Amino acid sequence: MTPSVLKPDPRLDLVLERDIDVPPELVWKAWTTPRHLREWFCPRPWSVTDCEIDLRPGGIFRTVMRSPEGKEFPNVGCYLEVVPVQRLVFTDTLLPGFRPSPKPFFTAVLELEPRGKGTHYRAVAIHGNEDTRKQHEDMGFHDGWGTVVTQMVEYIKASL
Amino acid sequence: MTPSVLKPDPRLDLVLERDIDVPPELVWKAWTTPRHLREWFCPRPWSVTDCEIDLRPGGIFRTVMRSPEGKEFPNVGCYLEVVPVQRLVFTDTLLPGFRPSPKPFFTAVLELEPRGKGTHYRAVAIHGNEDTRKQHEDMGFHDGWGTVVTQMVEYIKASL
Repeated sequence: MTPSVLKPDPRLDLVLERDIDVPPELVWKAWTTPRHLREWFCPRPWSVTDCEIDLRPGGIFRTVMRSPEGKEFPNVGCYLEVVPVQRLVFTDTLLPGFRPSPKPFFTAVLELEPRGKGTHYRAVAIHGNEDTRKQHEDMGFHDGWGTVVTQMVEYIKASL
Repeated sequence: MTPSVLKPDPRLDLVLERDIDVPPELVWKAWTTPRHLREWFCPRPWSVTDCEIDLRPGGIFRTVMRSPEGKEFPNVGCYLEVVPVQRLVFTDTLLPGFRPSPKPFFTAVLELEPRGKGTHYRAVAIHGNEDTRKQHEDMGFHDGWGTVVTQMVEYIKASL
């Protein structure tokens, strides 16, 4: 993997790490293809009703999440680093074209490493201060991000 | 030049464009080498007392500006796009390692195109809303950014 500029800080960041039994190539595909991502990216019974991906630095990453009651929550940001099958970095602090966002919250890093026939999966949420880290934790980071990894693995096994 | 994701918006962004009679290679060198940048980056009698550059996406871009009265103003951000001798994008909305910043303000884009023996120089300041655009304008964007281009050209001719 190319040397990373990322320096996680345990005081500010949240980390989810897991060994999963699907190969990095399929995890990458599930994360970077709108029609695949929609199938697993939100903990059910929430769902993803729309997804737009322009896979390059500054390119859009947009999802719309729908609650079980039918309320929709759009999220828009952009990619920062795209290293195929290895590392994907995106943020909501910048809109597409690197324009400062009205609601900056966090930067997300996904890192994949081959581990036997599977993948060592690592997702890090990088925050600017302890308050946003705590807010993300209270929103259910660990359960939520853990649940969607399980959903992703099931989807990959069934459909990719 | 590689296709750009940048989409300047006249309502939100500020642009400085100028044809200068020094080649793009030397402009790039002046912008990306701390000991060169210090010599021209601040409108005199202000000065740059420190500069740190890690020229890759997520790498640090830090300067310290000193007022004529001796007060120091640190600025820290990171690079987003580095296309040698063509395009340089940096922002203060993210700290090094893509960490959300406590004081997000703008993203800057420098684009260089060969024009005869010189350079078509284009600098764009991208803001998230009209208030920050206006604030930047009131801080003297046009005079300030214009002055430092003149200083840069003089420095390049004398020293590079």
